[in-house]
Amino acid sequence: MEKLLYHFSEGNASMRDILGGKGANLAEMTRIGLPIPNGFTISTKACLAFLDGDRTLSQELKQQIDQYLEEMEMKTGKQFSNPNSLLLVSVRSGAAISMPGMMDTILNLGLNDQNVEYLADLTSNPRFAYDCYRRLLQMFGNVVYGIDGRAFEDILDDIKSSKAYSSDLDLTVDDLKEVVRRYKEVYQANQLTFPQEPIQQLYDAVKAVFASWDNDRAIVYRNLNHIPHTMGTAVNIQEMVFGNLGETSGTGVTFSRNPNTGENELFGEFLLNAQGEDVVAGIRTPKPISSLNDLMPKIYYQFNAISEKLERHYGDMQDIEFTVENGKLFILQTRNGKRTAKSALNIAYEMAMEGIVDKGQALMQINPSAINQLLHPMFDPNQVANFPVITDSGLAASPGAAVGHIYFDAATAKEHNLMGERVILMRQETSPEDIEGMVSSAAIVTSRGGLTSHAAVVARGMGTCCVVGCEDIRIKEAEKVVEYPGGVLHEGDLISVDGSTGTLYLGEVPTIPSEADERFEKIMTWAREIADMKVRMNAETPSDIETGLRFKAAGIGLVRTEHMFFGSDRLPHMRRFILAENDQERQAALDNLINFQKEDFSTIFQQMEGLPVVVRLLDPPLHEFVPSSQEDIAQVAKQLEMDPAKLNRRVLELHEVNPMLGHRGVRLAISYPMLYQMQVQAIIEAALELKAQGINVEPEIMIPLVGMKEELKESKAFLEKRIQAIFDEKGDTVDYQIGTMVELPRACLTADQLAEDAEFISFGTNDLTQMTYGFSRDDAGKFIQSYIKDRVLAFDPFQTIDQEGVGELVKIASQKARASRPGITMGVCGELGGDPKSIEFFHNIGLDYVSCSPFRLPVAQLAAAQATIKQPRKY
Amino acid sequence: MEKLLYHFSEGNASMRDILGGKGANLAEMTRIGLPIPNGFTISTKACLAFLDGDRTLSQELKQQIDQYLEEMEMKTGKQFSNPNSLLLVSVRSGAAISMPGMMDTILNLGLNDQNVEYLADLTSNPRFAYDCYRRLLQMFGNVVYGIDGRAFEDILDDIKSSKAYSSDLDLTVDDLKEVVRRYKEVYQANQLTFPQEPIQQLYDAVKAVFASWDNDRAIVYRNLNHIPHTMGTAVNIQEMVFGNLGETSGTGVTFSRNPNTGENELFGEFLLNAQGEDVVAGIRTPKPISSLNDLMPKIYYQFNAISEKLERHYGDMQDIEFTVENGKLFILQTRNGKRTAKSALNIAYEMAMEGIVDKGQALMQINPSAINQLLHPMFDPNQVANFPVITDSGLAASPGAAVGHIYFDAATAKEHNLMGERVILMRQETSPEDIEGMVSSAAIVTSRGGLTSHAAVVARGMGTCCVVGCEDIRIKEAEKVVEYPGGVLHEGDLISVDGSTGTLYLGEVPTIPSEADERFEKIMTWAREIADMKVRMNAETPSDIETGLRFKAAGIGLVRTEHMFFGSDRLPHMRRFILAENDQERQAALDNLINFQKEDFSTIFQQMEGLPVVVRLLDPPLHEFVPSSQEDIAQVAKQLEMDPAKLNRRVLELHEVNPMLGHRGVRLAISYPMLYQMQVQAIIEAALELKAQGINVEPEIMIPLVGMKEELKESKAFLEKRIQAIFDEKGDTVDYQIGTMVELPRACLTADQLAEDAEFISFGTNDLTQMTYGFSRDDAGKFIQSYIKDRVLAFDPFQTIDQEGVGELVKIASQKARASRPGITMGVCGELGGDPKSIEFFHNIGLDYVSCSPFRLPVAQLAAAQATIKQPRKY
Repeated sequence: MEKLLYHFSEGNASMRDILGGKGANLAEMTRIGLPIPNGFTISTKACLAFLDGDRTLSQELKQQIDQYLEEMEMKTGKQFSNPNSLLLVSVRSGAAISMPGMMDTILNLGLNDQNVEYLADLTSNPRFAYDCYRRLLQMFGNVVYGIDGRAFEDILDDIKSSKAYSSDLDLTVDDLKEVVRRYKEVYQANQLTFPQEPIQQLYDAVKAVFASWDNDRAIVYRNLNHIPHTMGTAVNIQEMVFGNLGETSGTGVTFSRNPNTGENELFGEFLLNAQGEDVVAGIRTPKPISSLNDLMPKIYYQFNAISEKLERHYGDMQDIEFTVENGKLFILQTRNGKRTAKSALNIAYEMAMEGIVDKGQALMQINPSAINQLLHPMFDPNQVANFPVITDSGLAASPGAAVGHIYFDAATAKEHNLMGERVILMRQETSPEDIEGMVSSAAIVTSRGGLTSHAAVVARGMGTCCVVGCEDIRIKEAEKVVEYPGGVLHEGDLISVDGSTGTLYLGEVPTIPSEADERFEKIMTWAREIADMKVRMNAETPSDIETGLRFKAAGIGLVRTEHMFFGSDRLPHMRRFILAENDQERQAALDNLINFQKEDFSTIFQQMEGLPVVVRLLDPPLHEFVPSSQEDIAQVAKQLEMDPAKLNRRVLELHEVNPMLGHRGVRLAISYPMLYQMQVQAIIEAALELKAQGINVEPEIMIPLVGMKEELKESKAFLEKRIQAIFDEKGDTVDYQIGTMVELPRACLTADQLAEDAEFISFGTNDLTQMTYGFSRDDAGKFIQSYIKDRVLAFDPFQTIDQEGVGELVKIASQKARASRPGITMGVCGELGGDPKSIEFFHNIGLDYVSCSPFRLPVAQLAAAQATIKQPRKY
Repeated sequence: MEKLLYHFSEGNASMRDILGGKGANLAEMTRIGLPIPNGFTISTKACLAFLDGDRTLSQELKQQIDQYLEEMEMKTGKQFSNPNSLLLVSVRSGAAISMPGMMDTILNLGLNDQNVEYLADLTSNPRFAYDCYRRLLQMFGNVVYGIDGRAFEDILDDIKSSKAYSSDLDLTVDDLKEVVRRYKEVYQANQLTFPQEPIQQLYDAVKAVFASWDNDRAIVYRNLNHIPHTMGTAVNIQEMVFGNLGETSGTGVTFSRNPNTGENELFGEFLLNAQGEDVVAGIRTPKPISSLNDLMPKIYYQFNAISEKLERHYGDMQDIEFTVENGKLFILQTRNGKRTAKSALNIAYEMAMEGIVDKGQALMQINPSAINQLLHPMFDPNQVANFPVITDSGLAASPGAAVGHIYFDAATAKEHNLMGERVILMRQETSPEDIEGMVSSAAIVTSRGGLTSHAAVVARGMGTCCVVGCEDIRIKEAEKVVEYPGGVLHEGDLISVDGSTGTLYLGEVPTIPSEADERFEKIMTWAREIADMKVRMNAETPSDIETGLRFKAAGIGLVRTEHMFFGSDRLPHMRRFILAENDQERQAALDNLINFQKEDFSTIFQQMEGLPVVVRLLDPPLHEFVPSSQEDIAQVAKQLEMDPAKLNRRVLELHEVNPMLGHRGVRLAISYPMLYQMQVQAIIEAALELKAQGINVEPEIMIPLVGMKEELKESKAFLEKRIQAIFDEKGDTVDYQIGTMVELPRACLTADQLAEDAEFISFGTNDLTQMTYGFSRDDAGKFIQSYIKDRVLAFDPFQTIDQEGVGELVKIASQKARASRPGITMGVCGELGGDPKSIEFFHNIGLDYVSCSPFRLPVAQLAAAQATIKQPRKY
């Protein structure tokens, strides 16, 4: 019989795949001797079998559950429905990759009409017992039977308001019995019955947790976070411990360090006489964790020690859930804590400095995607005083400076964002149902909940600006207004949100770029030292190059020369070239362009001071440079002193049905060698002049869109001839390389042949993805998003490498090229060069560098370092 | 030292690669004891080293030439410049694949001012000696120094006309001495000297032959015939034998069977007292080979026996050059003879029946590309009498019925053909310089030369209609007129040429399809029996299907359903579907279309009677169905009773920048499942109705443009659901398969995943080629032809599989698909499915069938058989 269940004492941290993250951690903590409530884990295998099958629990699984339950009863000395020693359990989901709040949990399982009385007797606390029971009815009804949670909440609210209670704590035993009675009516109204048999409750709960893997919000979350849909979730069955047994009990959620700033101090919250969901849901406002020191100093001391032990054990900052039951501390859960980019950086740096982790481990703590946040703009401190403050009562939950129009529900926010509007979601509190609206928003603001509330945790995870618990404003979702001390906001009003201070402003506060600090510089230096791959930038303007050099780009991986022909002083000459009738006219136009080009390259080479620069010769189809509307044609004809009819005819001649697959790249050069010759002359003459000034440049000249070795051979030959002529004329030489951009499937398949002539190779993943999928980026927008939504595409292949298709071609090409020219330099200059998952792939297949936009450099450098740490190359 | 030279006695027929075709045959003939003049071959290796190097003969090569020459002198007892036993040699090119007339030859090498006197003494024939010398000067000047041949011809003509001679034979010794003197003046005028040293002549001649591999007409010929440019040519050095020693000497070129009709009779020509070039060049009109029986009956008998021996030895019809020197027969060359398609077929059939070859060898004799000629149209015999005959004095050199406008030089013919005109090239005689004009022409007509003249040989090779030796017309090339018995033709006049009878008609004679004969049917039956791969057709109209069934198509490989929506009764509904605003309107439009579709499929299935039929669901982008000009939009809006502004907006919405890479194929089905559901319903209902009538159909439903397994999984699922609903409703089922078209690089790379769902696979090589090269067929015309001309592309990849790129992807895909679904049926339905070289490739990688247009079926069936014979599959 296949082993489907594991006692906590049977597992360890390495078993995430089958035990899930939570189960593996519970096992690990049990293993290292922490105070963990007894329990066992149903493996992800059992879940997958359930999902693939007819969605019933197999006989085999039920037998194993029965057996493990029996063993658990032996260990705890407690039993279901035993009046003297009553066992209650929690049932929690736990996938291999954390998906907070996305799947379901049931607490207090094992209670029924009779056991609730036993519990009342055992604890001498009938109020507690009935509170547990009504919670079970509520969660079970919602999770197992899918009854809308509001049906239960309304009853609670109704009773509270009829008695004018302000808090759940005011409810009496009789009130709670009434709640239980009316909750059962809700079941009946839905033609359902709450199962009185504990084992039946357990089976049903396990089924519901399994099934929750496939609920809509879990699917959205996984798509958003690139988590495979095929992993399944484990289920943890654990003895209940109670934080709501009175004033010597309580529950808390605490980070081992501050997840917002990174400071080395416990950061979190504690609620006396409460169960964990009270903290997470933000229903009651919790106290800071430091309050525990006053309330239960010994427990606080013990918790501190455990927190440190866990940090050292896992080599990372921990997010710990715990409960105190009648003065005894239980750790319920620990996991690597989610944090802001800033705190991630600080924590990584500090932990390395404290010797808890080495530099590599420190880098592994930082999510490369989040690093962009550090470079997020901030509000201009000189201007902020000019804008009215809406409130500064909120908690700074996730940093950033966001401006947008406010909306009060997720659907409306998403809809307006799809129309291109910057939106801010304002809600009393958020719940997992809001996830799509949160993704669409530039900032999230709530009036309730603390720094570990759903809004705060999710926003930090996404790097979205967030302010929570703005206590002095009233968000009236139904009426779509916000009342604040100074006035009223309506739906669509424009506000500014400072996620670093918690302040909200009326209107649009101007932003300025944020400054990188010393720790950031240190971390980035470590990353560059560790990474096997270099990171270059795609840049050609002085300001972009300056940005890239600030981030220590290792060179330029892509100068897009076509960008240089659109200036108003250049475009007319370019047009004359394109519209010319013979080579003489063409050459005359190029003679006008060459000095501009020479200056362009000279500026770039000077700025780069000897760092490598790849210049891509002209790539796009010529018709991009000519007017298309009749109006523009008339105007251009006038400017160029050309017959409009002739111009029109030439424009029609240049028209292509599929320009992406047309007359462009090297194909232009084969038709008009003089074009590339002009560009190369500008490059080489600029380099020669700089050499005379003592600046050494070794240009890397890149020929795009090559699909056949003959294209490269021929164009390389006529470029070399021109270069030799320049050397002869000037009586001096510079070193240079001629290489090619590999961006066609055929180029990949014949890269060995191309490498005979190409002195370097750069993969153009944008075009390669277009050709491999047969997707035009210009057009595919119509269906790519719906493909992703329908799960036909797991991710956008223009943003993350498609390893099976595009990646396979890159891999084939790199192997073939290396076989034909050992040691050939190979890089990536498409947009994937700035994407962490793609960078890891490129590292693993042995490329030498990636190149990305200047602002992506830190992300790419960190991703390259992490890829090296995960799988170092063998030299 | 690497062996670069081979005596004829050292080689054999299998050594074509290094000895060339001619050298290997000379060796083979020497080996089997035929009377071959002594000699040796310089290998292709030496040529390639020469071409890759600095184009001088290496010291090593010169040493080997000296050594072999010495050995040859020993064997023949003759020596360069030996007055008692004078050695003269011929120097001839000979590549592995025959390129008749494309490269250079020099005869009589070894003569100089002194040796010509020795030869005169030795032969007692000073006239002969000086004729040889002037020929050497002429050929050497032309071939080695590139002096225009006309410079020499003019001198000859000048002397002949000044003496009123009608033939070269009239020239006296003194005349020839004068010719020699004036030829040397031509050298001087070009600042050149004829080398007097024989060994120097030989070195220079070898260099010139090597270099001729790269001359323009050789390159054109190789491009035309898909011969790689990297093979190089061998050079054959052979003892001269003389056909011009008087009335007991002569020379001939003869086929072992009639290359025009296939009749088993010697077919060729013989010239008394002449050297071979006189026959080939058509300068003197030769006598039929049968004349040899009267002139030299013993030689004729001996030649007949050798001809039969050679045919049996090579298993094919032979093209034999021979010389009789003073009553002694020498075979100079033999090779498989070029022939018309009709004769190829007849010869193959006869040889198989005679037991000379087996069926497979017989099939190997037939060039699949030529087989199309058999199906060429012929002039309607009922109408031909209505057209005036220009001449019937010509020889039917290559069959066909061609109509076109006449032009008198190759360049003009080509130019008019490029403008879309059907052209006929008329020349006194053709030469290798005319090759491009000949390629452009629908027919070739000459007034001089016989059935083995340049025009006749080349035209037969290309399958172009040709009539030669029209003696009663005068083609005045300079004046651009033709005088014929009944009048005068001018450039551009329209005529009709019957290559099967040799008759020329004024005006355009109507044509009718030719009938396949019994031998054709037999040969095709053998081909189908032998071929491992089946051949299906791409067809959907009743007449195309009828044609395909006549040629015994094994099924339909591609029904293009998009062709079915353009009928005037259907297009409005299709447009309503596309322009609809909601699913209800869309469904209403489809409800109108389904009956048309059902009838379409019912007709096809009935015609095919149980043979497999692959139906491709709708593939092209929707905007192909909507109007684009403002005028058309207005008209369609009226027809559909739609607001023109709204229609215009919808048309703009449907516009795509790169429609080839846009919203089409399965992407349409993911957006509008109802579209494919309608088509599948029509297919299945048609099949069910036919089943009720006793006709069993197993439709193969093909989903196009799939790039991801999820696309196929999802669309297959909703189609299967619809089909099941139909089965349930009708209470009956039919067998069917759902497969996919593999036409994207990504589909190839993930074919293992696709094959999990695809029950069959068909490669769409058109789109696959577009994506792999990044070529749009709509646009690439602008540069593909110039690419081919510039040798950037060796061939058009849309016509012949690109084995390194596209073919590699097909191979990868077929291996992956088979690994995932063993035994899966795989075919090709792109245009390459009708191309013999591509078919051989598809056979070699193990595909199950190819599919092509109905008229290509015989070509494809034969190619598939030949591929099987070359490399049988191991079952």
